[in-house]
Amino acid sequence: MTQLTVYLAGQIHDNWRDDISHKVAQLNLPITFVGPQTNHDRSDDIGEAILGEQPNSYYRDNAASNINNLRTQVLMNKADVVIALFGEKYKQWNTAMDASAAVTMNKPLIIVRPKDLIHPLKELSNKANVTVETVDQAVEILKYIYE
Amino acid sequence: MTQLTVYLAGQIHDNWRDDISHKVAQLNLPITFVGPQTNHDRSDDIGEAILGEQPNSYYRDNAASNINNLRTQVLMNKADVVIALFGEKYKQWNTAMDASAAVTMNKPLIIVRPKDLIHPLKELSNKANVTVETVDQAVEILKYIYE
Amino acid sequence: MTQLTVYLAGQIHDNWRDDISHKVAQLNLPITFVGPQTNHDRSDDIGEAILGEQPNSYYRDNAASNINNLRTQVLMNKADVVIALFGEKYKQWNTAMDASAAVTMNKPLIIVRPKDLIHPLKELSNKANVTVETVDQAVEILKYIYE
Amino acid sequence: MTQLTVYLAGQIHDNWRDDISHKVAQLNLPITFVGPQTNHDRSDDIGEAILGEQPNSYYRDNAASNINNLRTQVLMNKADVVIALFGEKYKQWNTAMDASAAVTMNKPLIIVRPKDLIHPLKELSNKANVTVETVDQAVEILKYIYE
Amino acid sequence: MTQLTVYLAGQIHDNWRDDISHKVAQLNLPITFVGPQTNHDRSDDIGEAILGEQPNSYYRDNAASNINNLRTQVLMNKADVVIALFGEKYKQWNTAMDASAAVTMNKPLIIVRPKDLIHPLKELSNKANVTVETVDQAVEILKYIYE
Amino acid sequence: MTQLTVYLAGQIHDNWRDDISHKVAQLNLPITFVGPQTNHDRSDDIGEAILGEQPNSYYRDNAASNINNLRTQVLMNKADVVIALFGEKYKQWNTAMDASAAVTMNKPLIIVRPKDLIHPLKELSNKANVTVETVDQAVEILKYIYE
Amino acid sequence: MTQLTVYLAGQIHDNWRDDISHKVAQLNLPITFVGPQTNHDRSDDIGEAILGEQPNSYYRDNAASNINNLRTQVLMNKADVVIALFGEKYKQWNTAMDASAAVTMNKPLIIVRPKDLIHPLKELSNKANVTVETVDQAVEILKYIYE
Amino acid sequence: MTQLTVYLAGQIHDNWRDDISHKVAQLNLPITFVGPQTNHDRSDDIGEAILGEQPNSYYRDNAASNINNLRTQVLMNKADVVIALFGEKYKQWNTAMDASAAVTMNKPLIIVRPKDLIHPLKELSNKANVTVETVDQAVEILKYIYE
Repeated sequence: MTQLTVYLAGQIHDNWRDDISHKVAQLNLPITFVGPQTNHDRSDDIGEAILGEQPNSYYRDNAASNINNLRTQVLMNKADVVIALFGEKYKQWNTAMDASAAVTMNKPLIIVRPKDLIHPLKELSNKANVTVETVDQAVEILKYIYE
Repeated sequence: MTQLTVYLAGQIHDNWRDDISHKVAQLNLPITFVGPQTNHDRSDDIGEAILGEQPNSYYRDNAASNINNLRTQVLMNKADVVIALFGEKYKQWNTAMDASAAVTMNKPLIIVRPKDLIHPLKELSNKANVTVETVDQAVEILKYIYE
Repeated sequence: MTQLTVYLAGQIHDNWRDDISHKVAQLNLPITFVGPQTNHDRSDDIGEAILGEQPNSYYRDNAASNINNLRTQVLMNKADVVIALFGEKYKQWNTAMDASAAVTMNKPLIIVRPKDLIHPLKELSNKANVTVETVDQAVEILKYIYE
Repeated sequence: MTQLTVYLAGQIHDNWRDDISHKVAQLNLPITFVGPQTNHDRSDDIGEAILGEQPNSYYRDNAASNINNLRTQVLMNKADVVIALFGEKYKQWNTAMDASAAVTMNKPLIIVRPKDLIHPLKELSNKANVTVETVDQAVEILKYIYE
Repeated sequence: MTQLTVYLAGQIHDNWRDDISHKVAQLNLPITFVGPQTNHDRSDDIGEAILGEQPNSYYRDNAASNINNLRTQVLMNKADVVIALFGEKYKQWNTAMDASAAVTMNKPLIIVRPKDLIHPLKELSNKANVTVETVDQAVEILKYIYE
Repeated sequence: MTQLTVYLAGQIHDNWRDDISHKVAQLNLPITFVGPQTNHDRSDDIGEAILGEQPNSYYRDNAASNINNLRTQVLMNKADVVIALFGEKYKQWNTAMDASAAVTMNKPLIIVRPKDLIHPLKELSNKANVTVETVDQAVEILKYIYE
Repeated sequence: MTQLTVYLAGQIHDNWRDDISHKVAQLNLPITFVGPQTNHDRSDDIGEAILGEQPNSYYRDNAASNINNLRTQVLMNKADVVIALFGEKYKQWNTAMDASAAVTMNKPLIIVRPKDLIHPLKELSNKANVTVETVDQAVEILKYIYE
Repeated sequence: MTQLTVYLAGQIHDNWRDDISHKVAQLNLPITFVGPQTNHDRSDDIGEAILGEQPNSYYRDNAASNINNLRTQVLMNKADVVIALFGEKYKQWNTAMDASAAVTMNKPLIIVRPKDLIHPLKELSNKANVTVETVDQAVEILKYIYE
């Protein structure tokens, strides 16, 4: 069976990635999952942790995003499919950024979002291959690729 | 002087595009501005206006984004520079989508956003060429290209 | 106003191209239309007309498609938008070929097709930016780009 | 020997894919075959099966093609060669779409079609690397790559 | 009418380029022709003329090809169509190089060659859009683009 | 050590490919060699062998080059390096075609040619990474990549 | 005559750009020259001039390079040819950066450098189309394109 | 864990590459390192060693850079990440060339440089994903990709 790498873009405040990878493992699909740093503090601190203390919070954020963007670029370049999950909270512009980059690089995109977000996500949903409401639906799509 | 086309991505709730194009006209720079439909109702209605009534609000939104995305793709393909403005209100995921598409297509990107948005926009700002806080700063950058 | 070139792919058995270009001219939009040879006999004969008599009808067809494909490639490379019209008659695989090539080259695509063709065209419609039923709707979309 | 992945585009109404993969297996060629969902009902139902009931048959078709197009895009991105089979029945515009996408992405293309389809397929045949009449001929070409 | 630029690759030992441009001018087609340096001595001398005397004939040739290749790259990047003429004399590997580069860059290619060269040119002809035997036939194809 | 695939373009009239692969095997370099059909009669006959008898020698050649070009495209897409060997005999335009395609696709190119061919190959040599006179030198370059 | 845009990369400490554009103007060549900000203080100050005072000299430099890189990207995207001049003084890594970006984007590159720099520039010279020692030689090459 | 290949660009006068690969090995990260010839004399001599004696030191350098650039192109095409180290000594324009090529090819770039080089490297640092001062910091970034 064809090996696939799937990048999981989106919030890092609950364990939705584990949920997907667990369900896919149960289905015995040959899929490797990659994604951002999911430890939120580590993600915010990584700039100063590696580059040293920065002059202010603006530069602290910039230092962290330098390294987080490098990580995303390395791993998304490896991805065959991107799943981007949007939730109720946070601005999630980095999720939109990753989703749009995927589409522009001709990588198939699945968006997962609750019904409440239909209107604000309509342009991005329209560019995605498929938009679903639950991670289980995303897993069903991955499963369908192998049927 | 080199002719440039600049795509103005972002919210359509005030006249920031007119502000930029007016200031650039006063500087006599050979720049053509393009951008999305700025009449908000027209933008939301365009799907049903052209494709006819849709079964529900989800499909109404999808019909509109079909046509708005086509417009954006046509005009952004023409653009030499993209300016993306983020504000306090709305989800603005389509703005993030346009900004990320620009970067991925090797089109130079200027982000305009208020200080309050530093943290949530940090990854996208990090990918942009320059992030500023006012449209006047964006105009100064355009002017600098011609110095 | 931004100059656009629109390639009109599809059948050459009625004057739908004139219909579009006439309506666009009345709207004073700065659009240049290009497309295939619309004289059907000329299109089928062009291989032998230029390359000389061929051994049989297979090679006659191949000679014609050599030259018709060159024409399409030259003009579609120039296009900012592609409109592909499907009708009730003929196989129209060259129309599907042009439409798919447009999407793959990141050129915005509008499909025009009657309701009866919803099912067989569903995959291609899904890849197009917009699918409409009449050339008037396609003209409205072109007009919307300039609003 | 070089591992190759071959995408088998075309109708899903008989077992031509099994025929090819069986013959290639007998030749011990290191080729992996991928392709669309070949269960026709499953292919038509997959939209509603995953996304839920749709308002009408148009949206039912659109939901299915969302997911079928994602599958095709994932697997065709992996392919080194595309074989597209055309038959007497059906519109087969999705087959033409896949074949044209392959050519545009610089993927070598073999078309299999009966003699009767020479004329309507002439432009697409002209863009393909080779056009043959039987799947056995396509297998011979795959075999020749390894001679 | 759509402006086109046509690169004329091939031997520089007779005036075939003037022949084509003269005939196209009589047809009032909006085509600009570009091509290599057609003064043979100038083409061979240009390296030493600009870079100074070289240590031996190998480096003399290398210096000239530096500058001739730059010229070809600049002008072929501008071209919408490439016409490559092969004749009885000379190795003409630079013509084959230009023709193959054109095809690989998705630029439509017309080959002009005498019948005697069918066999040695068969792979390159097979990649070209059209192969003809006379420059008049190439002019007819250019004319056909504008019909 | 990094696995590499090397495409060996050029004449098929002596065993230079075996010479290279034998020497590389003795050096234990992890290189896979691919290339065209080296049985000359098989290469010329393959069109009619698979597609059936053709109307004349022109179409016989065209049928063969259809299939040989497919083979080359499949295998060159897999290649990390291309070695193109030119000799005293034959037109070798297909070798020039493969070499130019490699350069245009950003694949590193080594040309092997005798001193007598310096002048006619000067433009193509200038585009290649390195030009040498013997296959032993080409092997030394491959060895150097692994030092 | 074909209009060309030439980007002039390199040091901004003397008037070599004026020298080139003056000589080209005297030759009546239809060439537009673009390049970096040549006022050195303005170039170093532009970050703080537009973005405001920065916390330290590192961030001051970073702010300036944000805007200077945007300018370079906009104008180099427009360029048909890049001329990169290296001199005795300064590190000139931005010149090497621009020259390498040009080559990687398939833009023809002319390097101008004194003889003393042959050894340290050997890899970059090897990637350039032509390396010369004086701006007059670069002008001669531009002139040759139009002969 | 995802396998990565990292190209180590920069000076070859101390053992910084061994330092990185040793530390990464201790971390058990599945990373393969590639890079230029690190034997300085071998790197300078390789042209004459393979191509024979050259007429003067200019051509000796050119012959060496032919082969060193081929090696770099082969291995950088394989790389998922590029680390470019700049030091106090030497012009290091080939390092800048490799770093800029990496960015232009969408390969993530980490620059390692001492504080003294902040100003002259500011444009290239601005294009890199991250700039650090020690190889240990670069190793921490590689480690972070796998967290």
